[in-house]
Amino acid sequence: MAWRVGVVGASGAVGGTLLQVLAERGFPIAELRLFATEHSAGRRVHWNGQELEIARFSAQALSGLELCFLAVPGAKASRELAPQVLAAGAQVIDKGSAFRMDPDVPLVVPEVNPESVRQGHGLYASPNCTTIPLVMCLGPLSKAAGLRKVVVSTYQAASGAGRGGVQELLEGAAAALERRPAPASVFPRQLAFNVVPQCDRFGVDGYTEEEWKLVRESRKILQQPDLALSATAVRVPVTVGHSETVYLQTERPLAPEEARAILRQAPGVLVRDDPARGEYPTALDVAGTDQAHVGRIRRDPDDPHGLHLWIVGDNLRKGAATNAVQIAELLTRR
Amino acid sequence: MAWRVGVVGASGAVGGTLLQVLAERGFPIAELRLFATEHSAGRRVHWNGQELEIARFSAQALSGLELCFLAVPGAKASRELAPQVLAAGAQVIDKGSAFRMDPDVPLVVPEVNPESVRQGHGLYASPNCTTIPLVMCLGPLSKAAGLRKVVVSTYQAASGAGRGGVQELLEGAAAALERRPAPASVFPRQLAFNVVPQCDRFGVDGYTEEEWKLVRESRKILQQPDLALSATAVRVPVTVGHSETVYLQTERPLAPEEARAILRQAPGVLVRDDPARGEYPTALDVAGTDQAHVGRIRRDPDDPHGLHLWIVGDNLRKGAATNAVQIAELLTRR
Repeated sequence: MAWRVGVVGASGAVGGTLLQVLAERGFPIAELRLFATEHSAGRRVHWNGQELEIARFSAQALSGLELCFLAVPGAKASRELAPQVLAAGAQVIDKGSAFRMDPDVPLVVPEVNPESVRQGHGLYASPNCTTIPLVMCLGPLSKAAGLRKVVVSTYQAASGAGRGGVQELLEGAAAALERRPAPASVFPRQLAFNVVPQCDRFGVDGYTEEEWKLVRESRKILQQPDLALSATAVRVPVTVGHSETVYLQTERPLAPEEARAILRQAPGVLVRDDPARGEYPTALDVAGTDQAHVGRIRRDPDDPHGLHLWIVGDNLRKGAATNAVQIAELLTRR
Repeated sequence: MAWRVGVVGASGAVGGTLLQVLAERGFPIAELRLFATEHSAGRRVHWNGQELEIARFSAQALSGLELCFLAVPGAKASRELAPQVLAAGAQVIDKGSAFRMDPDVPLVVPEVNPESVRQGHGLYASPNCTTIPLVMCLGPLSKAAGLRKVVVSTYQAASGAGRGGVQELLEGAAAALERRPAPASVFPRQLAFNVVPQCDRFGVDGYTEEEWKLVRESRKILQQPDLALSATAVRVPVTVGHSETVYLQTERPLAPEEARAILRQAPGVLVRDDPARGEYPTALDVAGTDQAHVGRIRRDPDDPHGLHLWIVGDNLRKGAATNAVQIAELLTRR
């Protein structure tokens, strides 16, 4: 019952977390092969008491694998690698954006749409790191009261742009503290001691790719193709942990107490909402966890259909690695 | 035509900026007296080629003043000091929240409601640092198309909590970079490398004072007591510059091009909105300026009445000191 598993992109921020989560959750692994496409090949990694070498990715080296995680940056790399892995006979779980909107590829958040894996043909996609905690909260609220409108503003961590993003933030902070110029190459502007309203590239409509991902992926996962949802995605000088303010209007008025009760029952959601006692989630205390943390649930004073939420999730774990491993767990149960 | 001017709270973050702005704008000053309520008395300050000593605040020392700025932290201090200054015969411009919602006190953003100073009886209030740039943009859009609904999420700098806030952020960042524990005494949580969805205290409705200030003050300044506006106020690890995402619905549909044209004509507003060329405001490049900077103006894809904006302002200058000096300039013209 144990699987021969590959991880491509094992040296990256998500790849590293993926190895950790596979070990933590005791995923049934008969053999683990690690791959990198570039300069990381040859590096050695300690994993679950073993020392493993990261190999250069090649179609030959895939032989015999049953399952392979793709944790490579950029949709282009996934588009190139996935067909090779599938051809070698392994199932693929891609953490990237390449296949998410493909109607033949299940886009899975196991707490929200586990049944979607049944429609898969070997290729499965894990959603964007802001989408996952959002739909974990929107899903149950939508079932209970219907969604009329959703407006999201994000506060996204540097690690969403990989290890290089974290490094640029930390170097930038050290430089700024010494009044030296801070770098801006991973991010479009200096991120240290700044907030930057741009994640990913802009389209002609003035929205970024990241903002459209949140919209389109949420619609697909929630099976609400016309859901009125729009967003502003903003990068903040945080290493790990994406936060989101969410304003939503429901079809049926929903009191904060009722929303809280629904979310307390929602799988994978942790309600932390007692502001008078200083209880609400922040990026720092959510880092390292696997839940969608939600607090500051309150009524829109002007509209009984309106609610405000504050959602925080670890973008490397539940926002990427943990969700991918959970998809694999669903596959082992098929 | 020159005035005898007092500044109470001259050693604080806003007080220091106020001195700078008075000099920069050439405010007509015959005599400048600086006051502090606490341990800063006795300190010397260079101002416009002079060396001035900060005196301990006392009613006697006010004698002969014509105008006095209150830049003291906390509404309580303003409530105590303002009556003494008025009794001494000087007009008062208070940067704090004590009198803002008093129906007899004009709450003034000179670009938006300059006429309001005419209703004043010696006491004038300057709005909260998030309110000012917001109403500078909402005012002209409201006149052109009417406002149906506004949802705001803020990204507020540490200096909104004074010099102590900036110090805690910088010390916290230095500590975190060395993996030492970071302080959390000015702010309810560690702010360095974190975002904290709490500015000011919580009320029983789950909103903070800061969030209600934004709502109530905007309604008063825009003379729209029923304006449907709600907000989430979030502290971010930035030293100077408050950013805000603003989602609004207008009565009459407003295309982004039209909104941009209206805002380009709006006094004090700087439209910086060419995302394809990387042009949008961020806290770092807005610090030191006096405008409300606005970018990322775009259509709600689901609603022709909906628009998204990204507004950034220097919270110490236009958000506090500059606005107060501009109110004083209106008074000199009466």
